[in-house]
Amino acid sequence: MQNAPPVVILNEPQLAENIGAVARVMANFGLAELRLVRPRDGWPQERAWASASGADWPLDGAKVYQRLEAAVADLRLVYATTARPRETQLPVLTPREATAELHAAVARGHRVGLLFGGERAGLETGDIALCHGIVTIPVDERFRSLNLAQAVALNAYEWRMGVADRPREAFALNIDEPADMETVVGLYEQLESELDDAGFFHPPEKRPSMVRNLRVALGRARLTDQEVRTWRGVVTALSKGRGRVLEKLARQKAAAKNETKG
Amino acid sequence: MQNAPPVVILNEPQLAENIGAVARVMANFGLAELRLVRPRDGWPQERAWASASGADWPLDGAKVYQRLEAAVADLRLVYATTARPRETQLPVLTPREATAELHAAVARGHRVGLLFGGERAGLETGDIALCHGIVTIPVDERFRSLNLAQAVALNAYEWRMGVADRPREAFALNIDEPADMETVVGLYEQLESELDDAGFFHPPEKRPSMVRNLRVALGRARLTDQEVRTWRGVVTALSKGRGRVLEKLARQKAAAKNETKG
Repeated sequence: MQNAPPVVILNEPQLAENIGAVARVMANFGLAELRLVRPRDGWPQERAWASASGADWPLDGAKVYQRLEAAVADLRLVYATTARPRETQLPVLTPREATAELHAAVARGHRVGLLFGGERAGLETGDIALCHGIVTIPVDERFRSLNLAQAVALNAYEWRMGVADRPREAFALNIDEPADMETVVGLYEQLESELDDAGFFHPPEKRPSMVRNLRVALGRARLTDQEVRTWRGVVTALSKGRGRVLEKLARQKAAAKNETKG
Repeated sequence: MQNAPPVVILNEPQLAENIGAVARVMANFGLAELRLVRPRDGWPQERAWASASGADWPLDGAKVYQRLEAAVADLRLVYATTARPRETQLPVLTPREATAELHAAVARGHRVGLLFGGERAGLETGDIALCHGIVTIPVDERFRSLNLAQAVALNAYEWRMGVADRPREAFALNIDEPADMETVVGLYEQLESELDDAGFFHPPEKRPSMVRNLRVALGRARLTDQEVRTWRGVVTALSKGRGRVLEKLARQKAAAKNETKG
């Protein structure tokens, strides 16, 4: 497979539910290939599929190995994730640094992998010795116990961030074009005119600074054309009651006249 | 609390097991304060503690709210995490970008929060309208269904990565502190109440979406305390001005009555 994302290797995983949860986060972040070394309860396990929430394909394609050496045989760069610092003379990386290295290797056409230990025992130093570096997730010293699927998720997320970094499509603002200044100033002037009528600007010599402050605050919102229309409606409704209240009163007035006439 | 990490707010969470899993990842990455808005099965729930693997303190200290507005009242910057892009006119950020903004706000002494929706329904647009931006985790289009605790974990991890990265003063704005959400929501509710009186929201079934759009636009302005006071004055002046017109009409009406009597 050309430019394949990292293979996920679980060494002696225990609970099938956790294997399913790993498959789910792999699917979330575009990883697909799962390898299991000596799963405690054998393989396949129905509960894995049940906890994958529909992310079946990493489970359907999972391969089982008796030896970690065989599981990493075709890979050229493998990082081992572990919560504890080790005495092994291997570089220690964050998930971000590790996935950057993995991206670089994949770009050169290499097959790469991420190795995770079982829930209870984690990885032994002998397993880590097969790898090219140690990934340490920066957990709080006071609570280091990270769920297996969470550890996979954080690495898979960082891998995905590296993919998403290319055209940076995801970072576009979700905001339409702001209205042009003529449109915005139209709203300002309507508002200020109504506030003049309402006697808002007092004392009068403070009017210019009060107007500035209103404009600055509203300007920071960078209103769109549609929003300017809405806010013009707001100002009209607040100051005129959309005319309807006035019409109602006028009707009452006319009715009262007719009553007194009748 | 000085320089507190983000508060985690779960809106209508369903499974106690997931709340426990959220507490666990919060503890992993140094977050501590958990708020629950209308948890489906009530609170406390023993199963939450069972699934937290010993990360009891976010659960022990969790507060329950009936309204999201109350749960965010003391916060000054809140991001909503959602998998689906929205039509709301709010900036869309990655967890990395969002936590950089959160770090900058916390460095200025602000209380900040991360909002997550329930397992099934996620967040409604009305909930998102209370927030200052949308966090979208860059999941694969083919499998977007991200577990709640995973979504919290990725944001908490990015927060933690940023702790190591500091200090970063890059986001200093030339504006005063934004008001807290209680203050801002007070302005929203005054405005909406006056608009109700003015007959602005019609047809009535459109009221929720109209309210959302008003809140989103005004929320983008990040009003300061002083500005909120000013804008409350604006709303009062405009609507009282309308009252004065009505009083004047009422006086004319009374005068007309007297005329017909006399």
